[in-house]
Amino acid sequence: MEFSSKLLENAVNEMSQLPGIGKRTALRLVLHLLKQPKEQSQKLAATLVKMRDEINFCANCHNISDSKLCEICANPRRDEQLVCVVEDIRDVMAIENTSQYRGHYHVLGGKISPMDGIGPGDLTITSLVEKVKTGNVRELIFALSSTMEGDTTNFYIYKQIEPYNITTTTIARGISVGDELEYADEVTLGRSILHRIPFESSLKST
Amino acid sequence: MEFSSKLLENAVNEMSQLPGIGKRTALRLVLHLLKQPKEQSQKLAATLVKMRDEINFCANCHNISDSKLCEICANPRRDEQLVCVVEDIRDVMAIENTSQYRGHYHVLGGKISPMDGIGPGDLTITSLVEKVKTGNVRELIFALSSTMEGDTTNFYIYKQIEPYNITTTTIARGISVGDELEYADEVTLGRSILHRIPFESSLKST
Ligand SMILES: [Zn+2]
Ligand SMILES: [Zn+2]
Repeated sequence: MEFSSKLLENAVNEMSQLPGIGKRTALRLVLHLLKQPKEQSQKLAATLVKMRDEINFCANCHNISDSKLCEICANPRRDEQLVCVVEDIRDVMAIENTSQYRGHYHVLGGKISPMDGIGPGDLTITSLVEKVKTGNVRELIFALSSTMEGDTTNFYIYKQIEPYNITTTTIARGISVGDELEYADEVTLGRSILHRIPFESSLKST
Repeated sequence: MEFSSKLLENAVNEMSQLPGIGKRTALRLVLHLLKQPKEQSQKLAATLVKMRDEINFCANCHNISDSKLCEICANPRRDEQLVCVVEDIRDVMAIENTSQYRGHYHVLGGKISPMDGIGPGDLTITSLVEKVKTGNVRELIFALSSTMEGDTTNFYIYKQIEPYNITTTTIARGISVGDELEYADEVTLGRSILHRIPFESSLKST
């Protein structure tokens, strides 16, 4: 792509560093900013820098938070002995959205992925194990992606906390509610038969 | 979408002001920035603000340029009497990319679109008419989108410059080179039959 301006080219190049934003999309976004008042670019820039500089992670669960403890950890009515292990804060948002969960979380910050150069040391596994060691965790719920990396991460953590004898569970995998059986992929369908639940339980959950 | 942090929420909201960027995508982009060194956010922000503040439009053709005249207008080997009228600088980039055109451009900055509140006064039509008035334009090539708005804009400009008796042309519309005839939409196909060209000309252009 040949640009008639170095300023434009630099802006497009920076914008296209973002994941999923190619050069064409970046150009479209940058040209949009050019048509808007200067204030919009300034506000976007200032907001991003402020966020990056001042963002805070909850001291207990590593969720993004504006205070030392996130609202979930600071809520005395939530069960701190029940800890749901997730990859990132989008998973916290998704689970909170269901209004079904009243425990705490532990945000790993990713999953073990040698291909992407992410090892256990890049995640918040040490602080999770410390939490378990204190004896204040009753049950750990693994809620990672159902991928090889997710399974590897689950197993790595599982081995680390095995000596402490707490309950470990994983979220149920199965056919999505409302989905036609015939369109489900066979792995999911297979797992959902293998891990079938008592019919009475299915009545309660609706 | 409920956020655990106001800083995060503000960043996502600003990001999702950009066209085609929904809240989910904005969150993904912002979380990516959080995983990168602070310098990346700072550089992105600074580059956008600098571009928006310092960007310059060519005094002759309104193309984006870092100097008073863009490289095309400043090039003495390009035919200034031949002017191609386009909507925005992406069209200039696309046509330049073909290496088939050696004239000048005139960037309108959009097309007349009452639905979007864009009237003739929002475009660079006055300066185009001025250019024609000086008598220094031999031919005007309309290269706007083949839409109702594009046609409206073409016609509006055409009426303004009619008194000055210059040649006006529009780019050829037809079946794309390499496209199967049967997949072409019928309007394009109809136009391409109506505006057929001598067979000998088609041989020259390959
Ligand atoms: Zn927390
Ligand atoms: Zn120019």
